[in-house]
Amino acid sequence: MKIAVDAMGGDNAPEEIVKGIELARDAYPDMEFQLYGPKERIQALVTNEERIEIVHAASVIAMEDEPVRAVRSKKDSSIVLAATAVKEGRADAFFSAGNTGAVLAAGLFIIGRIKGIDRPGLTTTLPVVTGDATGSFTMLDVGANADYKLTNLEQFAVLGNFYGQTVMGIEKPKVGLLNNGTEADKGDKVHRAAFEQLSSMENINFIGNVESRELLNGAADVVVTDGFTGNATLKAIEGTALSMLSLIRSKIMASTKAKMGYVLSRNAFHEVGQVMDYSKHGGAVLLGLKGAVVKTHGSAKAETVRNTMGQIHQIVASGLIAKTVAYFEDAKATTTDAEK
Amino acid sequence: MKIAVDAMGGDNAPEEIVKGIELARDAYPDMEFQLYGPKERIQALVTNEERIEIVHAASVIAMEDEPVRAVRSKKDSSIVLAATAVKEGRADAFFSAGNTGAVLAAGLFIIGRIKGIDRPGLTTTLPVVTGDATGSFTMLDVGANADYKLTNLEQFAVLGNFYGQTVMGIEKPKVGLLNNGTEADKGDKVHRAAFEQLSSMENINFIGNVESRELLNGAADVVVTDGFTGNATLKAIEGTALSMLSLIRSKIMASTKAKMGYVLSRNAFHEVGQVMDYSKHGGAVLLGLKGAVVKTHGSAKAETVRNTMGQIHQIVASGLIAKTVAYFEDAKATTTDAEK
Repeated sequence: MKIAVDAMGGDNAPEEIVKGIELARDAYPDMEFQLYGPKERIQALVTNEERIEIVHAASVIAMEDEPVRAVRSKKDSSIVLAATAVKEGRADAFFSAGNTGAVLAAGLFIIGRIKGIDRPGLTTTLPVVTGDATGSFTMLDVGANADYKLTNLEQFAVLGNFYGQTVMGIEKPKVGLLNNGTEADKGDKVHRAAFEQLSSMENINFIGNVESRELLNGAADVVVTDGFTGNATLKAIEGTALSMLSLIRSKIMASTKAKMGYVLSRNAFHEVGQVMDYSKHGGAVLLGLKGAVVKTHGSAKAETVRNTMGQIHQIVASGLIAKTVAYFEDAKATTTDAEK
Repeated sequence: MKIAVDAMGGDNAPEEIVKGIELARDAYPDMEFQLYGPKERIQALVTNEERIEIVHAASVIAMEDEPVRAVRSKKDSSIVLAATAVKEGRADAFFSAGNTGAVLAAGLFIIGRIKGIDRPGLTTTLPVVTGDATGSFTMLDVGANADYKLTNLEQFAVLGNFYGQTVMGIEKPKVGLLNNGTEADKGDKVHRAAFEQLSSMENINFIGNVESRELLNGAADVVVTDGFTGNATLKAIEGTALSMLSLIRSKIMASTKAKMGYVLSRNAFHEVGQVMDYSKHGGAVLLGLKGAVVKTHGSAKAETVRNTMGQIHQIVASGLIAKTVAYFEDAKATTTDAEK
């Protein structure tokens, strides 16, 4: 499988991106990489060109660039060229740690939506944090669309269900609708309608409404939400986890006795940091496009890049995109038949 | 000041409610209490009837009752009778730890909205958690309305600003709009319009959009949000804080060395628990009504009830309701003048 990599995206590009790709190359013998960036600069960083092709990209879309405009105007940027490789079938997946808006725009405008999908959903995986659990759950949309309709939520449920089956490897993922109560009549108009709609879908294992309080307890394997609420929920989880760790550290550091205790329990704190380090769980996937588009954090270092390549390997190897395409083609065919 | 208390609301009623009210009576010499509940049962619990009147309520709205129907049909319930006391001017505030929906419904249908307010906003106070900070912030709406319009967000900003000034004691509270990015063009249609609208309001110190990730860092004193997103954000913060504490405890308990460390740093953990114990920050206030309506957690014990009475004391003493009424009357008068 071939991966088109934006070598210039993120705070630590290109050094950490290149380093991470070399780690992934060593870990996955069936992966080939195209590194998009200024050829000479990238070449100087690559230690071994086995299964690594460097493709010259003269410009870079910066973090502060206006995404849609940048994608339209910077035709020779690493993001646009890498996305184009996927569009033209020269690569199976597009990866970037750069400007999120530009990655979404390149995915949407260059690679394009699967027929039958109105809007792609940004999909993230978070850890389940109960006792010594090691599971995870997937949530979408976490921010690709701030405006949304019922039909988007329906499609996110299908996309998330496929992701759960193929990438997370769960035969019948528990699909929940993020809502402000578990009862069927909870939520605003769109979410009440979505509850009805998801209840009637035979091909997904819909378990009903889930509340954001229960997500880290593993209430559902796939959490369906709109991009506005999903974004607020994701950022609240991230922010609270960081605040709690820093609060505990500062309380402990304020007392000599507690500080001695911390020295003894330091490893436990480190492990907690690891559990909550969502970069371990890979990047965010823009589901619903005709190619795999994966965006990892701007602060990603080599290890995160390598882990995200593991996730991409799973996405490509599982045939997720082809299955999704087939599903929506079938659905369309059925609708057309019924209309006759 | 007189407080109408639903003595039968919550998991620990009536015992803990009565105990908490007696603590509050001893703490606040200018507070008088009316305890609504089955007279004999309540009377048996009260140790000293000084400034405590027991008012018989023959029925109770249970946690599982359908809120609106229960408020309409159980005319002799402790919730309905206590709310009616506020409506008829026999009490300044209504307090309950019972069925949240029923408290909201009683506030809305019995006490009623301030003229000019379309929907009340459920308002909660959370701790700021940066290092050794001891501040807090207030957020509304956290769930009174799942459906909303631009005008609701505008009114929440005004209501929250008054709450910040009078109850939190901040001269010019920083008012932020919860959104999925800090830039002016972020969010869905309603939130983009709300940004414009709040920017143009001269009487509030609008600091722009805030992200849920930054709330516990004290990004704003008053966070304006719709009831759907606010509810999801609040529950995500609560759930993550609990999960983090339990994760850290379980990681520590898994190692003997770390366990010894825990013994030494136990006080620090206890302090963290205290910071995150939002019952310390009082109850949720339903702002926008013609009387003070405060709901605390169903699991509230005597100490929480006492703390919430401190918050109610502050609300009533500050004249928050009268100031809000005057503001919206002025706004109405100005609009009417302009229309002439």
